[in-house]
Amino acid sequence: MSSYRELETRYRRLAAIGQATGMLHWDAAVMMPAGGADARAEQIAALVSLRHELQCRPDMADLFAAAEEEKDLSPWQAANLREMLRGWRHATALPADLVEARSKAGMASEMAWREARPNSDFAAITGLLAEVLRLETEAAGIKAEALGCTPYDALLDQYSPGIDTATVERTFAQLTAFLPGFIAAVIERQASNPAPETPKGPFPEATQRAVGMRFMQALGFDFGGGRLDVSTHPFSGGTPDDLRITTRYDEDDFATGLMGILHETGHALYERGLPKDWRLQPVGTARGMDVHESQSLLIEMQACRSKPFIDYAAPLLKDAFGGSGPLWDAGNLYGIFTHVNCGLIRVDADEATYPLHVILRTDLERAMLAGDLAIDDLPGAWNEAMQRLLGLVPPDDTDGCMQDIHWFDGAFGYFPSYTMGAMAAAQFFQAAVTSAPEIPDAIGRGDFKPLYGWLGINIHQQGSYLETPDLIAAATGAPLDPEIFIAHLQSRYLG
Amino acid sequence: MSSYRELETRYRRLAAIGQATGMLHWDAAVMMPAGGADARAEQIAALVSLRHELQCRPDMADLFAAAEEEKDLSPWQAANLREMLRGWRHATALPADLVEARSKAGMASEMAWREARPNSDFAAITGLLAEVLRLETEAAGIKAEALGCTPYDALLDQYSPGIDTATVERTFAQLTAFLPGFIAAVIERQASNPAPETPKGPFPEATQRAVGMRFMQALGFDFGGGRLDVSTHPFSGGTPDDLRITTRYDEDDFATGLMGILHETGHALYERGLPKDWRLQPVGTARGMDVHESQSLLIEMQACRSKPFIDYAAPLLKDAFGGSGPLWDAGNLYGIFTHVNCGLIRVDADEATYPLHVILRTDLERAMLAGDLAIDDLPGAWNEAMQRLLGLVPPDDTDGCMQDIHWFDGAFGYFPSYTMGAMAAAQFFQAAVTSAPEIPDAIGRGDFKPLYGWLGINIHQQGSYLETPDLIAAATGAPLDPEIFIAHLQSRYLG
Repeated sequence: MSSYRELETRYRRLAAIGQATGMLHWDAAVMMPAGGADARAEQIAALVSLRHELQCRPDMADLFAAAEEEKDLSPWQAANLREMLRGWRHATALPADLVEARSKAGMASEMAWREARPNSDFAAITGLLAEVLRLETEAAGIKAEALGCTPYDALLDQYSPGIDTATVERTFAQLTAFLPGFIAAVIERQASNPAPETPKGPFPEATQRAVGMRFMQALGFDFGGGRLDVSTHPFSGGTPDDLRITTRYDEDDFATGLMGILHETGHALYERGLPKDWRLQPVGTARGMDVHESQSLLIEMQACRSKPFIDYAAPLLKDAFGGSGPLWDAGNLYGIFTHVNCGLIRVDADEATYPLHVILRTDLERAMLAGDLAIDDLPGAWNEAMQRLLGLVPPDDTDGCMQDIHWFDGAFGYFPSYTMGAMAAAQFFQAAVTSAPEIPDAIGRGDFKPLYGWLGINIHQQGSYLETPDLIAAATGAPLDPEIFIAHLQSRYLG
Repeated sequence: MSSYRELETRYRRLAAIGQATGMLHWDAAVMMPAGGADARAEQIAALVSLRHELQCRPDMADLFAAAEEEKDLSPWQAANLREMLRGWRHATALPADLVEARSKAGMASEMAWREARPNSDFAAITGLLAEVLRLETEAAGIKAEALGCTPYDALLDQYSPGIDTATVERTFAQLTAFLPGFIAAVIERQASNPAPETPKGPFPEATQRAVGMRFMQALGFDFGGGRLDVSTHPFSGGTPDDLRITTRYDEDDFATGLMGILHETGHALYERGLPKDWRLQPVGTARGMDVHESQSLLIEMQACRSKPFIDYAAPLLKDAFGGSGPLWDAGNLYGIFTHVNCGLIRVDADEATYPLHVILRTDLERAMLAGDLAIDDLPGAWNEAMQRLLGLVPPDDTDGCMQDIHWFDGAFGYFPSYTMGAMAAAQFFQAAVTSAPEIPDAIGRGDFKPLYGWLGINIHQQGSYLETPDLIAAATGAPLDPEIFIAHLQSRYLG
């Protein structure tokens, strides 16, 4: 057997273990009673460490070296080998004691954060967060050397492979220059119109679920190959033929739960559309967290908050919830679904203000990693940036620098993927509509086939064949361009 | 680190992988959409083969040899080492190609059985079943040599460790001598009384579930550490602090679903009670399928079909289902729950006729393994034995020799555990009541604490510390004695 083939066999097994681990996470979030937590943590730790050991077997370097010499690899096989190597370099870059120290520090810090956050007790977690930061800084330095890039590039590569710091800097600078003034103009414009008014509930959970499933089916979700459940933090998991998405319902507000379902369905249908011939191989998996987010935001923000979709959805919502009167008109619902508002909390933000939350975090984490911002100074720096970017000062750290799990969990370098995804979503959607101009009308009939036809060919079936910049260029004819996202915002909110 | 300690570390990891695999099976049976089947099969295969490889690492033999020399092991550590060795000998006895051939033949034969059974098409599966039998025979021979026992002993040891063929022969002979005449007498006696009459449904699934959960809580099941769900074939899975039991509901018949829940709760609470200090070690796991079955049958048959329990349950059932009239009286319900009746189907059998179904299968599988019964002659031999033992001839093989999955799945040596469990249940229950005479009255108030007090100390907290015959002797003061089960039947049905 060729070395490449041997690697395929090994990575197939690694992927199956990874899928099993994902399933255990899904169960923990959706089904598991509280009593199962300790045993589940041990099960997951066993699979993660086993997977790591298998990926780092001593003969892997020789296999890779031999596979790279093989002349008869197809382009997809070569791309698969490239993606195997990317993962392997990340896995083997760090000494085992640093891997373990990172994992332990992240767990301790996250646990302390869960307790300290409600009390805005930042002092209680500074020591633990400083340790996480120290280890992330050390890991970034080692990986940078191994990968031949800067430390922040190395962290980005874990979540948004192919996207470098220069791209983040360039695009975020454009958004920073544009957004504050734009947001002020939108808020002024919206204030001059009658405010949209939210229909009054209660909206029974079962009805919300039934409505959500109806829209999922319109999008193309097949319940013979997936489920919709409830969890505290909505997410998308499972495997391409067994998609598991979750949401949460608020009986006073159907809009949030519904948009959550559409967002997660966007994630799920990306997984569903990945190349069947490359299942369980690195090249057959999603391109990265940024491209993943582009697929959820494309569905939620570009397609499902559009006027044509709301026109289609409004009578269905009115009918399903037994509503009556002008609050259920498409015009009013569109107002609700596109309302812009400066808030303190990232996960509640609209598409116009969201990037500023991300930019704030990106700036601060880069400063922390560079040693330019001490943990003790984080709350002050956070509040100053919130004031500058969004005109708000958090009343406490609960809704300030303690609101997100990411840093406490050790996920430095993750935040940019949200906004890279938002920009890519706008660019993909524009390219799709240019290529298939019937898409908006079809969405207005609840028909997503034309859109998914384009996404399937240009994004989903590409898996990880191309690097992200090449995927964007191949699909849209141009490199990632924030101006397309900016034009989308201008057209939707000031057009 | 001592070799024993190193083994503990390794077995802890093996156990965590085993638990993860169990969770994937639970999800497949309870939650997974049909589309997930292929990926799930690959995930499970990956974990099973990994676990096997880890258990068979080349240095294990040396570790065991060194651990056996260690002088300072506590009795529980020594028992743990004995149980590690038992599993390791089974895992390493067979050459890898036979392990794989067994697994493949079992899967192919089971798949064919699922298709052929509804059509009573025995001819369609004879070749595949013959191959399964050939491989099981070969495996039994090799394991017999490795374990120093007979081939059937080696198969029994996989499911009922510590129970040998001689014990099965001795006890089954006593039952065979007793049961046919006894059953005829019971049927005659029951025919001379007014037949119990089943209340008419429909009994809504949600109500059945709520009633089931109420009784589970009376038994001591904590829903902070477990779940009740629905699956085609009821089973008990999960881990001691995250018990997962399933049942199925028939809206025309609440009795079957309810007794299914009580049976599985018996299994679950055994797991729950296993020694906490030995979680994830072989000595901390359940003693075997036979002792497991003793715990489910003790709850279902000994406790919950008893007159005191039915007296307690009858008004609750009447109230929950909104029933009225004499059909809901304890007397009538007791008649339903203790009705004896010769039928063709093992899984539908009552406690008096059930052992004859098991004896029939044990005789036939031993004949097949010994080469005395060819697969082609199985239907005839089955029908002859059914006629002889239960006075019935199956109209076809669907309800004859094709009714159970076990042989088609390769589980030769499993059937005896059902009846070993029934006998042990009677013996344990008698010992419990002798030791704590308040148990029946307490059960009559829905209070299972005295019973579980005795079971906890004498069975559950023993884990796999003792071999099964020693466990029975320590708990009851005597070796396994079918006369206690026989006396229970006589007292309940002819008393």
